[in-house]
Parts: sequence; structure tokens; C-alpha cells
Amino acid sequence: MHIEIWSVGKENESFIEEGVRYYFQKTKPYNSIELHILQPPKKLATTDVERAKLVEEELILKRLQTQHYLIVLDERGKQLNSVQWAQQFQQLMNQGTKTLIILIGGAYGVSENVKKRANQVWSLSALVFPHQLVRLILAEQVYRSFSILNNSPYHHS
Amino acid sequence: MHIEIWSVGKENESFIEEGVRYYFQKTKPYNSIELHILQPPKKLATTDVERAKLVEEELILKRLQTQHYLIVLDERGKQLNSVQWAQQFQQLMNQGTKTLIILIGGAYGVSENVKKRANQVWSLSALVFPHQLVRLILAEQVYRSFSILNNSPYHHS
Repeated sequence: MHIEIWSVGKENESFIEEGVRYYFQKTKPYNSIELHILQPPKKLATTDVERAKLVEEELILKRLQTQHYLIVLDERGKQLNSVQWAQQFQQLMNQGTKTLIILIGGAYGVSENVKKRANQVWSLSALVFPHQLVRLILAEQVYRSFSILNNSPYHHS
Repeated sequence: MHIEIWSVGKENESFIEEGVRYYFQKTKPYNSIELHILQPPKKLATTDVERAKLVEEELILKRLQTQHYLIVLDERGKQLNSVQWAQQFQQLMNQGTKTLIILIGGAYGVSENVKKRANQVWSLSALVFPHQLVRLILAEQVYRSFSILNNSPYHHS
């Protein structure tokens, strides 16, 4: 199963870039993973929250293919633990999922239409994290999930 | 109020080091913050979990002073949101707390004696994160808390 993390917003700070690469390298023996940063057109940069969300929505929806399985990260989503993440990934692979998209919304969250399209909505924490840090947390957690599925000693809880 | 993050374990990977410095720099105009990495003596490195926890316990307890306010991070702790973190810090400052210690346990969590000494036990998430990443998450979240207390636009939820 190919995994793509989609994240709306700016390019990574160097430490985030390095950290994401660090966990992607560790994940590659187990599973294919990529980060795609979706940047809204600069001229549309706006302080109008509703309009910004619509621009993001268009960016995401036109990129999504019908066979993509979509997990959206949102504070109001389901909080699973690390073992449950692993189980969910296993289940998707068992169902023959080819491409899993994990979407991190922009600074103001994702639009209702994107949430409607989502197969699942997950939450990392009750805390709010910056989107760049979420990319890194997500890279680590996907690595952890595949470590669990492959009985690597990385995860001990 | 001076804040110290205490973390048992290895020195930081370079991207964690850089990221922690990034958020500490941002926090400094608001509040004093430091990271202390507590390294168990190398000759005591052990695969015996209970013994490792005792070594860590000793390391922590002998460093703690009676006037230190201690918050321990543990998966089974209370999950607060970012605004609640800010409120808790404000309350501690109002009570005249001089030094707040936020403790990240070692790979196998903290001992019962350390938990007993803790004034509070908080959880970041239902997910398990590596301790180095927790240092970074914590650095960001303390910055976020003080941004909230200072009405900076950094946090919008």
C-alpha cells in the first residue's frame, strides 16, 4: 500500500525536513511513503478564513482520485492509539487498498466537503500542533505502525 | 516562572536539537525555558526494565528540590488541550511557583515513586511518541501556551 501524506501550507523548516526524511528512511524497508506539500497559489493568499478553506478544498478535491482511501487529521476526529493505527493500516492492506492519503488540513482545518469525502477522521491529540510538526509526528507514527506490524522492537508500550 | 524540561535518555538527534532550539528562541521573550537531558551512567545500561526504572528514579529524585513543582508526562495522565495548558501555567505563576519541572520518563515510563511525587500527570496523546520527539512537541507546546497567555496570533484554534 502506497502512503501519501498531503499537507497544505509552506515548505518545511530545515529541522522538520530532516526529521521527516529520518523517519521515511526507516519506513522504506516496510512500506512506500511520500510527503506532498500542497501550496495554494500565492496570489490567493488571504486572511479571509472561509475563502482560504475553499481554495484548499479545491486543491485537495481535484487531486483526489476515486480509489484513494482518505484519512483526514482533525482535532475533532477519533483518537486511536499506536497499536490501533497499525491495525487500521493492516486492515486497509487486507482490503486491497492501493493508495492511502493522510491529509493534514491548513491552518484553519479542512472544509466540510473534504470531511464528507474522508473515509475516516483521526485526531492525534487534544493539543493543537503546528502543521509542520504534524508532518513530523505523522512520519514517525507511520514508521511506528509498520514496526508494530513487522514485530520490530522499536515499539514497546 | 522558570521551566525546565527533564528528559531521561540519549542526546538529541540533530533535527530534534535544532527544533527544540527553534521553539526555545521563540519562547524566551515570554518565559525562561531549558532542556536538561538526564543520562543514566553507561555502566548501568541494562535490559532489565525494572532495574532501569529504579536507576532513573534515583537520578530524578536526587535532583528534585522540595520547592519544584513537578508535572510528569505519562500516557495514562490527564489530556488537556492547549488552552488548558496555558491556564495551568498561568495558575502556577499566580501561586508564585518559581520552578516548574516537566518530566519525560525513559523508554519504559516513570516509576511509581516519581509519580507519587508528581504534582500532576499529563498525557500528550493516546499515541506513543519517542522521547526525543516528545522533547520537541513539548518545546512547541510551551511556546504555544505562552503565546496564548500573551495574546500572540500564533495560536488560533
